[in-house]
Amino acid sequence: MALMTAEQYVESMTKIKKRVYFMGELINITEHPLAQPALNSVALTYELCFNPEYEELFTATLESGEKVNRCVTFWKNAEDLIKKYKMIQITARLTGRGNSRTVGADAINAIGSVSYEMDDDLGTEYHPRFLKYLKYIQDNDFTISGAITDPKGNRSLRPIQQSDPDMYVRVVEKKSDGIVVRGAKMHQSVAVHAHEHIVAPCTTLREEEQDYAVAFAVPADAEGLFHIMGRQPSDTRRLEGDLFDLGGINQGGNETLMIFDDVFVPWDRVFMCGEWKWSFPMIHRFAGYHRNCYGAGKSAIADIVIGAAALMAEYNGTAKNSIIRDKLTEMVHMARTIYACGLTSCVEGYSTPSGIFNVNLMYTNVTKLHVGRLTYEIARLAEDIAGGLVATMPSHKDFTDPIIGKYVNKYLKGVDGVPTENRMKLMRLIEYFCYGQGSVYFLSEALHGAGSPQGQKLLIERESDLETKKEWAKSLAGISD
Amino acid sequence: MALMTAEQYVESMTKIKKRVYFMGELINITEHPLAQPALNSVALTYELCFNPEYEELFTATLESGEKVNRCVTFWKNAEDLIKKYKMIQITARLTGRGNSRTVGADAINAIGSVSYEMDDDLGTEYHPRFLKYLKYIQDNDFTISGAITDPKGNRSLRPIQQSDPDMYVRVVEKKSDGIVVRGAKMHQSVAVHAHEHIVAPCTTLREEEQDYAVAFAVPADAEGLFHIMGRQPSDTRRLEGDLFDLGGINQGGNETLMIFDDVFVPWDRVFMCGEWKWSFPMIHRFAGYHRNCYGAGKSAIADIVIGAAALMAEYNGTAKNSIIRDKLTEMVHMARTIYACGLTSCVEGYSTPSGIFNVNLMYTNVTKLHVGRLTYEIARLAEDIAGGLVATMPSHKDFTDPIIGKYVNKYLKGVDGVPTENRMKLMRLIEYFCYGQGSVYFLSEALHGAGSPQGQKLLIERESDLETKKEWAKSLAGISD
Amino acid sequence: MALMTAEQYVESMTKIKKRVYFMGELINITEHPLAQPALNSVALTYELCFNPEYEELFTATLESGEKVNRCVTFWKNAEDLIKKYKMIQITARLTGRGNSRTVGADAINAIGSVSYEMDDDLGTEYHPRFLKYLKYIQDNDFTISGAITDPKGNRSLRPIQQSDPDMYVRVVEKKSDGIVVRGAKMHQSVAVHAHEHIVAPCTTLREEEQDYAVAFAVPADAEGLFHIMGRQPSDTRRLEGDLFDLGGINQGGNETLMIFDDVFVPWDRVFMCGEWKWSFPMIHRFAGYHRNCYGAGKSAIADIVIGAAALMAEYNGTAKNSIIRDKLTEMVHMARTIYACGLTSCVEGYSTPSGIFNVNLMYTNVTKLHVGRLTYEIARLAEDIAGGLVATMPSHKDFTDPIIGKYVNKYLKGVDGVPTENRMKLMRLIEYFCYGQGSVYFLSEALHGAGSPQGQKLLIERESDLETKKEWAKSLAGISD
Amino acid sequence: MALMTAEQYVESMTKIKKRVYFMGELINITEHPLAQPALNSVALTYELCFNPEYEELFTATLESGEKVNRCVTFWKNAEDLIKKYKMIQITARLTGRGNSRTVGADAINAIGSVSYEMDDDLGTEYHPRFLKYLKYIQDNDFTISGAITDPKGNRSLRPIQQSDPDMYVRVVEKKSDGIVVRGAKMHQSVAVHAHEHIVAPCTTLREEEQDYAVAFAVPADAEGLFHIMGRQPSDTRRLEGDLFDLGGINQGGNETLMIFDDVFVPWDRVFMCGEWKWSFPMIHRFAGYHRNCYGAGKSAIADIVIGAAALMAEYNGTAKNSIIRDKLTEMVHMARTIYACGLTSCVEGYSTPSGIFNVNLMYTNVTKLHVGRLTYEIARLAEDIAGGLVATMPSHKDFTDPIIGKYVNKYLKGVDGVPTENRMKLMRLIEYFCYGQGSVYFLSEALHGAGSPQGQKLLIERESDLETKKEWAKSLAGISD
Repeated sequence: MALMTAEQYVESMTKIKKRVYFMGELINITEHPLAQPALNSVALTYELCFNPEYEELFTATLESGEKVNRCVTFWKNAEDLIKKYKMIQITARLTGRGNSRTVGADAINAIGSVSYEMDDDLGTEYHPRFLKYLKYIQDNDFTISGAITDPKGNRSLRPIQQSDPDMYVRVVEKKSDGIVVRGAKMHQSVAVHAHEHIVAPCTTLREEEQDYAVAFAVPADAEGLFHIMGRQPSDTRRLEGDLFDLGGINQGGNETLMIFDDVFVPWDRVFMCGEWKWSFPMIHRFAGYHRNCYGAGKSAIADIVIGAAALMAEYNGTAKNSIIRDKLTEMVHMARTIYACGLTSCVEGYSTPSGIFNVNLMYTNVTKLHVGRLTYEIARLAEDIAGGLVATMPSHKDFTDPIIGKYVNKYLKGVDGVPTENRMKLMRLIEYFCYGQGSVYFLSEALHGAGSPQGQKLLIERESDLETKKEWAKSLAGISD
Repeated sequence: MALMTAEQYVESMTKIKKRVYFMGELINITEHPLAQPALNSVALTYELCFNPEYEELFTATLESGEKVNRCVTFWKNAEDLIKKYKMIQITARLTGRGNSRTVGADAINAIGSVSYEMDDDLGTEYHPRFLKYLKYIQDNDFTISGAITDPKGNRSLRPIQQSDPDMYVRVVEKKSDGIVVRGAKMHQSVAVHAHEHIVAPCTTLREEEQDYAVAFAVPADAEGLFHIMGRQPSDTRRLEGDLFDLGGINQGGNETLMIFDDVFVPWDRVFMCGEWKWSFPMIHRFAGYHRNCYGAGKSAIADIVIGAAALMAEYNGTAKNSIIRDKLTEMVHMARTIYACGLTSCVEGYSTPSGIFNVNLMYTNVTKLHVGRLTYEIARLAEDIAGGLVATMPSHKDFTDPIIGKYVNKYLKGVDGVPTENRMKLMRLIEYFCYGQGSVYFLSEALHGAGSPQGQKLLIERESDLETKKEWAKSLAGISD
Repeated sequence: MALMTAEQYVESMTKIKKRVYFMGELINITEHPLAQPALNSVALTYELCFNPEYEELFTATLESGEKVNRCVTFWKNAEDLIKKYKMIQITARLTGRGNSRTVGADAINAIGSVSYEMDDDLGTEYHPRFLKYLKYIQDNDFTISGAITDPKGNRSLRPIQQSDPDMYVRVVEKKSDGIVVRGAKMHQSVAVHAHEHIVAPCTTLREEEQDYAVAFAVPADAEGLFHIMGRQPSDTRRLEGDLFDLGGINQGGNETLMIFDDVFVPWDRVFMCGEWKWSFPMIHRFAGYHRNCYGAGKSAIADIVIGAAALMAEYNGTAKNSIIRDKLTEMVHMARTIYACGLTSCVEGYSTPSGIFNVNLMYTNVTKLHVGRLTYEIARLAEDIAGGLVATMPSHKDFTDPIIGKYVNKYLKGVDGVPTENRMKLMRLIEYFCYGQGSVYFLSEALHGAGSPQGQKLLIERESDLETKKEWAKSLAGISD
Repeated sequence: MALMTAEQYVESMTKIKKRVYFMGELINITEHPLAQPALNSVALTYELCFNPEYEELFTATLESGEKVNRCVTFWKNAEDLIKKYKMIQITARLTGRGNSRTVGADAINAIGSVSYEMDDDLGTEYHPRFLKYLKYIQDNDFTISGAITDPKGNRSLRPIQQSDPDMYVRVVEKKSDGIVVRGAKMHQSVAVHAHEHIVAPCTTLREEEQDYAVAFAVPADAEGLFHIMGRQPSDTRRLEGDLFDLGGINQGGNETLMIFDDVFVPWDRVFMCGEWKWSFPMIHRFAGYHRNCYGAGKSAIADIVIGAAALMAEYNGTAKNSIIRDKLTEMVHMARTIYACGLTSCVEGYSTPSGIFNVNLMYTNVTKLHVGRLTYEIARLAEDIAGGLVATMPSHKDFTDPIIGKYVNKYLKGVDGVPTENRMKLMRLIEYFCYGQGSVYFLSEALHGAGSPQGQKLLIERESDLETKKEWAKSLAGISD
C-alpha cells in the first residue's frame, strides 16, 4: 500500500483514536463540520496521485522502484524541489490553502539531512534510525505533521529562563526504552488529520538547554497527546448547514494547540536527544524548506484571489476601467514576485552531505518576507475592486427568503446576464480570503507560518555576505586598506 | 427635550415600529444580540453630552441659546469642524468605531448649504423647508442616518441606462401632496438605530435623469421602508452568550440594504426634486464632510490597535526589542498622518454662501485615500507584533473547560504577572479589528465608506490645480509661451 | 533700517570680509558663479517684504510697532507659525529651495524660549542677554545662520569619547571677557550669505561633557572662522557661462564645512555655557521648529516638480493618459500629505513659559519623516513621466550648434506647437531636481536636513504616549490589571 | 580572430572613422575623458573572455567548435540564458553598469528567432541572410549596439500621424541594391563604442506604416550616420583631471542621439522591410530579452551600493545599530528580489521555432518593473545610511590643499583607523550612484531602459491569463455559468 486512495486515507483517519477538543468539546475529526474541510484537503493530496495530469508532481519513485507520495521522500536535486514547488501550487489552486503534507515532507528532509551530518560529527546513529522510520511511513503512505513552534512564554527569556520550564517541549525523563516528553506545540496545522507527528525544536539552544534539544516522532494516538483546535474567523458559519456564506468552500485546515502531557517515545523514534549544537541546523533546515513552500502556496492562493477580483470587476461592469486593470496588474506583479523568489530558492539550492538537496537560504527567506507583506496588499486590492458589499452583504438566508429574497436578488445584481447568486457567491469567496477562514491561510499564515518576519530578516542578514559586497565597493572606489 | 439621555434614546427606539431582517428573520433592533452593540454605540453619543469632560465637544449651542447635540447643527467655522473632529476621535476611542451620528450631521450640512445655493440659483424654496425640518430634529434630539449609496447595478452604465431603472433611488410618482420613491440604499450604517433618514443621490446626474435627482427625509417607520442587515465577519459569535471570543466588545454597528418599496414622502420633507445640476454639489458636499470624519475616527481606532499591539508586545516580552519599537513607531506615524490630513481639511476649509463652513476638499480626500491604505498596514503590523495566535487561539470555552482549561492557561501564558486570560482577551481584541466585526469599521469601511478610493482620486485630481503648478515650473525654468 | 532692500542686503554682503573656500580657492561669495544663486535666494527674502502680495507673510510687527522681517521675531501663537509656514511655501515655489532665513529664525525661537526656562531653573541671565542680541539683529535686519550639526566622528561614541575632542564644538578656554571655541559645524546652509551665526549643540550631553554645552552667536567675519563649501551634483555646469543645462535656475544654496579655529566669543554673545542638562531641550526645540519648515518648503518644491511633470506630459502628448494622470494624482497626494502634517504641527502647537509658541513635536516629526521618503518617490515619478531623456539629453551647445543643432531641434521635439527648446528646458529642470543641484534641496536635504530619519523616529516614539493607547485597548477589551 | 583581446578591441576602435559630437564638438571616442570610461567597460568584456575564472560565462562554443564571445551567439536553452545572466552580474559588479555587449546579443537573438518565424510565415529569406551576417560578426568579434528607441514626437499619435514623418526610423527609398533610411534612435548606449549597429522598430505597426517596419545592420562608419552624446549628471567633473570627485570610477557609458541622415543599407544587411505584422514579435522578443538583463545588472549594481552603505556604516561607527542593520537587510531583500525574478525569467523560458530559447515574458517584465522602483529605494536607503555628507562634501582639491586640507582631514574623519580619504572616496562612490554619472545606470536606465514601466505593465497584463484565474475562483466558489 505505497499509495493510499483518498477513500483509504479517510477510512484510516476514522480508525485512529484521537483526542481533539474544539470549543470545550471532544470532536470527531472526520465528522465535525469544522474538521471536514481540512480532511478534504488532505484527502485531495492522496487523490491527485492517481490523476494522470498531476501524478508526476504528486508522486516520486524510490530507488526500489516503488512509487510513493512525493511528500514522504527526500529531495535529491533542484528538479525535485521544483516538482514539490509546483505540486504545492496545484494543491493551493484547488483548495485555497497550501499542501497539507509538505510540512511533514519538510520535517523529513530536515531531519534526514541533519541527522546524517550529526552522526558524522558526533558518531551518533540517528540517520539510519530515521531511514528506518521513513520506510515505515512510505510503506503506509502516512500523512505527517511537523510540530515545531513552542509556546515560548516570555519571548525575551531563553527556554531555561522561563518560570515554567515546559514552555518549550523537553525531555522530562530518560528511560532505558525511551524518553518522556512534556510541553506543547502551537499553531499545528494538519496535525488533527495526520497519522504521525514529527517533533523538533524551534530555537537555537545552548549547552545548559540540552533537555530541549529533542527531535522525535509519535503516532497520532500516542498516550498523553491531545489537541485543542483554535478558532478561525467566521468559523461557526460552518454550523449553519449551508456553505454559501463561507464562499462555498469545503476545503481548509485546522490549527491546534498540541499538548504533550508526558508522552513516552521509544528510542527508535528519537532523532535528537541532547545534541544542542545541532538545534540550529535542524531549525534552519526545516524553516528553509518550509518557507520555500509559501512561495508556491501563497502565490497560488493569490491567483485565486486575483481571479476572483477580476471576475468581480466583470460582474460589477468595471473590467475595462484602466485603473481597475492597473490594480489587477499590480496584484499579478506581486503574486509572480512571490512565486519567482521561491522558485529561485529551489533553482539555486545546494546538495548537503547526505545527498539531500537543500533550498537556497537567502531566497527562501526573501520569499517568505514578501509573502507576509504582499498577500495583505493583494487582499486589500481585491476588496477594493470588489466593493463595500464584501463587508455588508446580507446572508444567503435572506437571499432565499420567500418575502425579502426578491429584493436581495433585485438590488444586489451587477451586470445583466450574471445571476445575483453568482455575484453573492463571489463576494463571499473574497470575504473568505480577506476576513473568513481563508484569511488564516492567505494572510495570517502568510505572516507567521514557518516563522514570523523577523526570523526571515535574521536569515537574510546572515546570508547577505556584506563583506564581499564591501570589497566590490572598495575595489570600484579605489579604496585599499 | 433638546438633549435626550441615553436611556431616553433607547426607550425611543423601542417605540418606533421598524422592519429589520437578519438572516431571514425579522429582528428587534433593541434586543437582538447582533443589534445591541450598535444600539450601545449610538446611546453613548447621547450619554457623552452629559459628561462634563466631553460636553463641549458633543454639544453645541444654537442661536436661540438652546444646547443640542453637535450632530444636529450647522458648522459655522473651522472651530466647529475641529470640535466635530475631536468629538469623533473620542467616540471612536471609546467604541472602536466612528461616531454614529456624524453621517446624519454631514447630510444636514450638505443639504443645508446646497439647498441655500440652489434656492439662490433657481428660486426654489428648499432651504427654508429644510430649516424647518432641522428644527424638528433638534427639538427631538433625533439620530439621523444619511442614505446615499445606491446599488448601482452595472457600474459602467449610467442610472438611466440600467436594465432595471430602480438601481438608483428615483421618484416614481409625483402627487399634489408629495412624491413616491423607489429603490434601495446600500451599506446603511446607523440606519436601524436612527429616528430619521436623510436620503440624497450618490452620483452626478444629467438632464434626462431628473427622476434620480431627489433628496428627502423619511421617518424610520415610513410605510414601505425596510432593512436587510448584512453579515459581518464572525458575527454569530454574538449568539454564543459570551463576549470573550469577540474581544469583549459590546459596541459596534450594523449595515443594511435599505429598501424603499414605493415610499411616500410629503413635500415638506423633499429637499431636491429634479434639479439634476445640483446633484454634483450635493454629493461632493456630503462626501467631503464625511471623508473628513474618517480622519478622526480611523486614526482613533488605529490608536486602539496600536495600544493593543504595544500591550501585546509587553505581554509577549518583546516590548523592548528595537525592531518591535520601530514597527510601533511606524504605526503611530501612519495614524498621525491620517489625523493630520483630516485636521487640515477642517483648518483650511471655507465658508459657503449660506454661512455653513465646508471642509477643504483637497485635504478631506487626501485623508480618506490614506485611510483606505494605512489602516490595513497598521492592522498587518499589529498582527505581526501579536503573533500567530491571533489566527489559531482556542476558544474561551476551552479556557474555562474543567479538563483542558488548565492546559490552555498554562501554555498560552506570556510574561509572568500577566494572567493568561488577559493575553487571550487582547488577542481577541486584535482579531476583532483585523478579522472580526471590528474589521468592518477599521478596514472595510476605511476602504469603501464615504466612497471608494477612486472617488477620492478624482477629487484630488480636480483640486490639484496643475495649471498653477505648471506656471511655477515654467517660471523657474524660464519657459515663456 | 528695520527692513533692508534686496540691494542693501547684497551690498551688505560685499562689505563683510569672509573666508570661504571652494575647490581649493578662496572665493568671493557675491561674485563667484557658484555662490550667486544662493545670494539671489537670500536677497529674495528681503525683496518680498516690500511686495504687497506677500508682505503680511514675510514681515511681522514688533510690540514697538516696528515692522521687521518675520525671521527675526519670536512666534507668539499658532497663527504666527502658520504665517511662517506659508512664507516658506511662497519662497520655495519661487526659488526651488526653502526660505534661507528660517534656520536663523528657528535658532532665535529655540534659544529665546529655552534661555527663559533655563534662567528660571538655574538663575542664569541668558534670556535678557539674548533679547538684547535679538534687538541688534532686528535693528540691522540681519540674516542669521543656525549652526547645529557637528562632524560627530565615530557615531557610536559620545563627544567625550572621541579620540579627537574637537569632533563636537566645544569651549577650549574661558576668559574674563568671553570664551574661546573650537570645532566645526557641517552642512551649513545659508552660512556664507549670513551676517551672523547662531551656534548650538546637536546632541544631548552629560555632566562630564559640559564643555560641549555651549550656545553663542558670532559675526560672519569673526577671527578664526572660515568655510569650506561643499560640492553639489553638476555644480560646475555653472561655470559654463549659460544657465540652460542647469534648468535655467539662478536660485539655490551652498553648504559649508564651517570651521571654528579657536574663535573668541564675548560673554554678551554666549547663551549657554556648561548647562548640559539644557542641551536636550535646546536641540529638540530647534529641531522641532526646523522640521516643521520642511513641511512647507518641500511640499512647495514638490509642487514645482509636479507642475514640471504635468507640463512634460503635455509636451510629450501623454497628458490625457489615465495612468499618467493617476501618477500625477499620487504625487499631489504625497505633497499634500507633507503639507498637512506640517500645518498640523503649527495648529496643534503649544505655548512655552516665555510665551514663545512651540510646534507640536509629534506632528513636526511625522512631517519630516514623510519628507525624507515621499520627495524621493515624487522625484522618481516625475522622472518616470518625463522619460529617459532626463538622463541622456544633449547639451544646449549641441542645440545651438550651427551644424548639428537642427538635428537636435528636429528629433527632440514633442507635440506640435511646443518649441523643442522649451521641452529641453523642462527636461533640465527635472534633471536639476532629481540629479542636479536642486536634488540637494528636494532630496538630500529632505532626507538629512534638520536631522536624519532615525532622529524623527525617536521623537515620534517619545511623543507616542503608548501608555494611554494601551489603556484604551484594555478598556475596550475589558482587561483590568 | 574569434576572440579579440581588450587591446585589440581598443585598437579597432581607433581605426573606425566615427562622427560623435559632445557639447557642440566632434570628439575622439577613444581619447576624450568623457568617452574613455565607456571604452574601458566595453574592453573589459573582451578581457574577461581570457580570464580563467570567468571565461565559461563570457564565452560560448559554436557548433563549429570555435570559441566566441557569448554576446555574439544564439541562446539555445535556459542554461545559456542563465550563463548570460551571470555574465552580466559579473560585469556589473566590476564596472557599476551592465554588460555593454548584451544589448547587441539581445538584438541578435530577437532578429535571429523572429526572422526564422517570419520566413516560415511569409516565405521571405531573412533568416539565412541574418545567419550570414552573424557569422561575419562572430568572425570579427565585433561589439554590436541595438538601436531600438525612436524619438516618438507626440506620444499620443502613431508614427504615421506625426507632423514630421521622421520621428520613427523609416525607409525613404528602396533601390535595387538596398534601402535608404532616415530618422534617429534615442538613448543609444554602447553605440559610440560599437563596430556595428543593429536597428529595429520600437512600436507595433499597422499596414499603412510599412515604411517603418524595417530592421537592418549598419557599420559604425556608415555614411550619413552620426551621434550626439548626451550629458550625464556631474559629467564634466571628468575634465578636472582627477577621478576622486567621481568616486574614483573609470568605467561607465555614453548615450547618444543616433542620427540616420539618409543612410544607405545594402539588401544583405536588411532583415525586415515592410512586414509590419512582424513588428510586434520583433519588439517584444528584443524587449523580453533585454529586460531580463536588468535583473542581473541592476541587482549587481545594487550589491555595490549595499556594500558601500554597509562599509559607510562601519566608517561612521553605526554598523552595529539594529535599525541600520535592518535597513541593509531590506536593501538586500530588494536586490535579491530583482535577481530572483530575472533568474526565473531564464528558468521558465521556452524554445521558439528556430531553436532559439526565449525568456519567460511574464517574469522578465515583473523583473523590469521592480528594477524601476526598487533601485530608487535602495539608493535612498544608501544615502540615508551614509549621511548628509553625500550632498555637502568639500572637493578633493580642498582635501589636498596645503592650507585647508588639514581641516577637511580632521573634521571629515569617521571611526579611528579609517583614513579620512577613504571615507571621502566612499561618499563620492555613493554620490556617483545616487546623483552622479552612475545614477544613469543605477536609476534612470533602471526606470526607462528597455522600455518604461508602463510597457512592462502592458506585458504583465497580457501574460496574466486572468481567464484561467477566474476559472479557479469560480471552481472554488462553486459558480457555474
